[in-house]
Amino acid sequence: MSALSEGLTQIVIPLASLVGIGFALLQWFLVSRVKLLSQDSSNGYKQKLIESDEEEEGINNLEISIKCTEIQHAISVGATSFLFTEYKYLGIFMCVFGAIIFLFLGSVKGFSTKSEPCTYSQGNTCKPALANAIFSTIAFLLGALTSVLSGYLGMKIATYANARTTLEARKGVGKAFITAFRSGAVMGFLLAANGLLVLYVSINLFKLYYGDDWEGLYESITGYGLGGSSMALFGRVGGGIYTKAADVGADLVGKVERNIPEDDPRNPAVIADNVGDNVGDIAGMGSDLFGSYAESSCAALFVASISSFGISHEFTAMSYPLLISSMGIVVCLITTLFATDLFEIKKVSDIEPSLKRQLLISTVLMTAGIAVVSFFALPSKFTLFNFGTEKEVKNWHLFFCVAIGLWAGLIIGYTTEYYTSNAYSPVQDVADACRTGAATNVIFGLALGYKSVIIPIFAIAIAIYVSFSLAAMYGIAVAALGMLSTIATGLAIDAYGPISDNAGGIAEMAGMSHKIRERTDALDAAGNTTAAIGKGFAIGSAALVSLALFGAYVSRAGIKTVDVLTPKAFIGLIVGAMLPYWFSAMTMKSVGSAALKMVEEVRRQFNTIPGLMEGRVKPDYANCVKISTDASLREMIPPGALVMLTPLIVGTLFGVETLAGVLAGALVSGVQVAISASNTGGAWDNAKKYIEAGVSEHAKSLGPKGSECHKAAVIGDTIGDPLKDTSGPSLNILIKLMAVESLVFAPFFAAHGGFLFKFI
Amino acid sequence: MSALSEGLTQIVIPLASLVGIGFALLQWFLVSRVKLLSQDSSNGYKQKLIESDEEEEGINNLEISIKCTEIQHAISVGATSFLFTEYKYLGIFMCVFGAIIFLFLGSVKGFSTKSEPCTYSQGNTCKPALANAIFSTIAFLLGALTSVLSGYLGMKIATYANARTTLEARKGVGKAFITAFRSGAVMGFLLAANGLLVLYVSINLFKLYYGDDWEGLYESITGYGLGGSSMALFGRVGGGIYTKAADVGADLVGKVERNIPEDDPRNPAVIADNVGDNVGDIAGMGSDLFGSYAESSCAALFVASISSFGISHEFTAMSYPLLISSMGIVVCLITTLFATDLFEIKKVSDIEPSLKRQLLISTVLMTAGIAVVSFFALPSKFTLFNFGTEKEVKNWHLFFCVAIGLWAGLIIGYTTEYYTSNAYSPVQDVADACRTGAATNVIFGLALGYKSVIIPIFAIAIAIYVSFSLAAMYGIAVAALGMLSTIATGLAIDAYGPISDNAGGIAEMAGMSHKIRERTDALDAAGNTTAAIGKGFAIGSAALVSLALFGAYVSRAGIKTVDVLTPKAFIGLIVGAMLPYWFSAMTMKSVGSAALKMVEEVRRQFNTIPGLMEGRVKPDYANCVKISTDASLREMIPPGALVMLTPLIVGTLFGVETLAGVLAGALVSGVQVAISASNTGGAWDNAKKYIEAGVSEHAKSLGPKGSECHKAAVIGDTIGDPLKDTSGPSLNILIKLMAVESLVFAPFFAAHGGFLFKFI
Repeated sequence: MSALSEGLTQIVIPLASLVGIGFALLQWFLVSRVKLLSQDSSNGYKQKLIESDEEEEGINNLEISIKCTEIQHAISVGATSFLFTEYKYLGIFMCVFGAIIFLFLGSVKGFSTKSEPCTYSQGNTCKPALANAIFSTIAFLLGALTSVLSGYLGMKIATYANARTTLEARKGVGKAFITAFRSGAVMGFLLAANGLLVLYVSINLFKLYYGDDWEGLYESITGYGLGGSSMALFGRVGGGIYTKAADVGADLVGKVERNIPEDDPRNPAVIADNVGDNVGDIAGMGSDLFGSYAESSCAALFVASISSFGISHEFTAMSYPLLISSMGIVVCLITTLFATDLFEIKKVSDIEPSLKRQLLISTVLMTAGIAVVSFFALPSKFTLFNFGTEKEVKNWHLFFCVAIGLWAGLIIGYTTEYYTSNAYSPVQDVADACRTGAATNVIFGLALGYKSVIIPIFAIAIAIYVSFSLAAMYGIAVAALGMLSTIATGLAIDAYGPISDNAGGIAEMAGMSHKIRERTDALDAAGNTTAAIGKGFAIGSAALVSLALFGAYVSRAGIKTVDVLTPKAFIGLIVGAMLPYWFSAMTMKSVGSAALKMVEEVRRQFNTIPGLMEGRVKPDYANCVKISTDASLREMIPPGALVMLTPLIVGTLFGVETLAGVLAGALVSGVQVAISASNTGGAWDNAKKYIEAGVSEHAKSLGPKGSECHKAAVIGDTIGDPLKDTSGPSLNILIKLMAVESLVFAPFFAAHGGFLFKFI
Repeated sequence: MSALSEGLTQIVIPLASLVGIGFALLQWFLVSRVKLLSQDSSNGYKQKLIESDEEEEGINNLEISIKCTEIQHAISVGATSFLFTEYKYLGIFMCVFGAIIFLFLGSVKGFSTKSEPCTYSQGNTCKPALANAIFSTIAFLLGALTSVLSGYLGMKIATYANARTTLEARKGVGKAFITAFRSGAVMGFLLAANGLLVLYVSINLFKLYYGDDWEGLYESITGYGLGGSSMALFGRVGGGIYTKAADVGADLVGKVERNIPEDDPRNPAVIADNVGDNVGDIAGMGSDLFGSYAESSCAALFVASISSFGISHEFTAMSYPLLISSMGIVVCLITTLFATDLFEIKKVSDIEPSLKRQLLISTVLMTAGIAVVSFFALPSKFTLFNFGTEKEVKNWHLFFCVAIGLWAGLIIGYTTEYYTSNAYSPVQDVADACRTGAATNVIFGLALGYKSVIIPIFAIAIAIYVSFSLAAMYGIAVAALGMLSTIATGLAIDAYGPISDNAGGIAEMAGMSHKIRERTDALDAAGNTTAAIGKGFAIGSAALVSLALFGAYVSRAGIKTVDVLTPKAFIGLIVGAMLPYWFSAMTMKSVGSAALKMVEEVRRQFNTIPGLMEGRVKPDYANCVKISTDASLREMIPPGALVMLTPLIVGTLFGVETLAGVLAGALVSGVQVAISASNTGGAWDNAKKYIEAGVSEHAKSLGPKGSECHKAAVIGDTIGDPLKDTSGPSLNILIKLMAVESLVFAPFFAAHGGFLFKFI
């Protein structure tokens, strides 16, 4: 028996969610104390108090504050309008795919309303397949809506915070850091707590119908993960194309051809670029990490439900995954205080260590937290079922499974930091290769990305081996959850990056002094590294989650082994390994084509609008926003279709074994492509920033801005944009999503799949 | 019973080899009729007759002929000296690795000299493990020596032919084409025939000892494949680093900084560049394709020996793989006549169709050839054993297996052509992306490479499924052989490329007219495409060969299934999928670093040698040759060690299951990386040539040489160099070599492997 009673469990989980939401609101309140000037439509500008403890440059400069407010407003309007358009398309998709889920799963037993004997819990009676079809569809819609809400809230917070960060930068780098970081925390805690709460409430509501049919309950809950991840896919791909088309287009003409600074208000694509940061890096990433979190929870819950039939389904033990997440919220809350209240950022060089410290603190505290949860929520020993064999598991076994996932995440994070931060030799070598031009820069950058996969892969492999040995597939599922247990902190430091990036953009556009821009640039450089770390976490956890989902799928589809020596599985494996390439080809080409159009538009405006280069006339920002919007909405469909249709087509035509091969192939190949793409891009970006900042003798010898070396570095940075912000981070969704989709549709494939082979 | 008697088989195979060698010598004789001026050390220059049927420009210009001879001599001396240095290192490696083979395999049964009961052919007695250790070592050394000889001969032929092609180019493009093509044919036929002959003789000699122990015989013969491929690895990597360090270095300073043409004699790296073509693209590729051929033959023979215990080991049926290769030589001989005698090249636009026609003709003829061999050499039906199950196979089943491999090869070849030839839209789109600079060029090029894997992977998957369904692992082994059966033609059109490239270089250096250079450039552009096609074949066949070797390994290691759901196999799979990235990181970085050194040396010479730019003083070619030589010999060791040691370490420490996972992972991931790298590089090269040649309106709008678009294209070309000539083509050796090495060491791993897991 668990030490924690069922009643207490029922209180602890929602309580943790509410604490998380409360903490997020508190942080929001603190950010909101930085006052902007609001534009009153009838009375012109009305000044509100600008909070000022200490006086620094230009704090009372009214004109700059008004400009900042205006720009923030433009960005917010652009982002909101894009997201609403995107969500309109996604609404249609949700309805169509919801219908597909219902029809496919309903047809498994011919829409019969009769109860069936259970698959795993033999002798018992389970709810009819039709009920599973209905509840899976509901769960899918809930997951999709929560995901959309997460992305939207993240965007709102980020556009609320960016100008405030700019204004605070006038008072010093520490103030600006706190504002950006608090805003990131709002997003992190809101998403983590909201995700947990919706899942918890859904389970309890579903349970009213399912009662003791745990198998059916958690099978339909898996739809929640599918909904979350499918929205994340479109969010990431659509947002990624939007932001990079604008970014590449703005840089190619502005920086390279016209020699004007980044984010210069004369550049027609500058608003689109800043909107892109919010819809791609913020809303897309929010959906993505929410999806990972939803899927790993669902995977753990589902595997628990099918592998623990040796013991009575004790509610507390079954809720172990949710309790881990609840503990994660509390741990992250304490961790955040270290950054916002216990330590103070006094100078630029404090920023990166402070963010890195967040990772370490949360990991150390969480290790203790996992131990507490494992000892109170689990019986001291119990039996797991795994592909027909029984396995005796002790509670400290599960502690090790979660903890190894958590620490593997930290290793991946630190490795990513080593390969993408310009404080270390890899990025400095890439910067040095710019001496001989763009070609050697690109060769070195690609080699760096390839090399950066080695340690993460070993970390993942060890985590898999240990957690599987201790607790079979359930071990892997909770290891994934362990890696994501500190998601609130991970999201906070991740969201911090684009907010700082935007803050810098606003400072530039508002014509603020060079000093302010230097401060926001320093925040942004650290943000590039944390963004890469966030992607590392997302990919690492995706690998574990996918494996757990894959295991659950295989079990659900009734396959005994996935033998690569059978031709059905092997052709699946090799085709699956190809899918990340196909997907990347689509997304890269989309960014390239959209960027070409953007370049032509920006060039056209510079050439045809008189006085634009001199800053006398404003460019036509709206046209550039339109190009990005149209391109991203049109171009997100083919890669989205590839990912969503592959499991359906393969499962229906070729059957469950080939689909198992496809999942394994996509997993092992996609992880490598994703890590190398993200890190290569991050390294190029920071190599460029290294040359621009010129803090060391070596960096000075390569610079300054505008030198041949710097031009070569800008080319690398531009190539890296689609790799690190479009293809790379979408790939982890590809592997997770195909796995969770296969799991949801497994009953259908097992019953009716493999049509083509049957025919031959 | 086969229709072909054993006696006739014993005649047909060596006869075909001798015909192949004879045909190669005939072609050599025809090439040698183009006379060069020979430099006589005591009496200065002595003129020999220059053959001249028709008079064209400058044919009797003595000075140019002397210059060509001098340059050819310098290239030949450089290449020979490099290869001898390389072979010295490889000689040491061969001895050490030979000793390892002997010790590992000898220790399986503690160096016992007692005969053992057979593994597969139960009830019979097989030769002692010690004998297998000795004969495997001998086979390894034989394979290694044959591989080295193949590379060396190829280089000699190419350096013999390059200046002759230049001189013939004065008479017209047709004459030059014939000379280059005949020289390629010399290499193709010599390698194919020689490989077959050595294998045939070895089998017959080994058989004197082994007698009826087919299992032991073909197990030790597998060492031949290992020897061939391990030399190929070092040849490809070493040669690849040599040629690309020189090429990148020469281009970065010469073309980009100094604005002098490619192959300009003022460029100090120009001789190193031309030497590189011969040691990398010719000797390296020769060793590589010989390795593929040797491995696929060994795989087929070994699988035949262990899977055909249902029938008596009839010599003719067992020799089916060798008979296919014999037929291949005859078919390729006829095919060659189409290019050299039946059709005539009259204009530049005839070249590429003529080479493509070679592929089609050889495939069509070979299909008939396979049918003949299958019906005469095989019993009409027989039984195969596959992992303990029996399978009834008919002779026309095997015909389909070989034929589907052959045709899959053609599809891969044509797909590669589509993605890398500048006659089609993919490369033209990449060229068009140069309008907006190098960054979009690179983005489009990477996307093209990713996209180009789709069709080849489907072709491979279908070939695997069909051939496995018809004849299990033996089917896959002979499908690989089918793809390589037209190797003589494949090598001929592949070697033709670097010979034309060199011919162009010699024309430039000898100061010949623009017209001659245009002709050799046209030959070279077609050569880029055929080189990419050759790599496509090499990769496709490597995938099939590796799978067959993998199957043989699994069988030999006594594993029943390779279930990716077991943690041992899965961690192998994901780490295996990582290896191509690790390997590419090493080779790319090596080329990058060596190129940086080369750039510095070339810059130094331009800056410090007065009169160099004006052409009054000769540069110090030898120093550049030394940089390339040193770099390639030093840098080929780490990637070589990675490939050679991984199977040994994994097998010994983690055991046969994890090693099986590693092989499968490296196979499915490596194929994608290799295809995309080769095609991306080929496309960039031809996008550049498209802009330079300016044949269409579109191409003219991007050019001419020296325009901003062209500069962007040159950057892409330079990035592609290490991708297409170092990393990409080495990766197929990685996957084959790890598979064949695992197979050779399988008895050891099965007996003593998995040390670490046993310990835990």
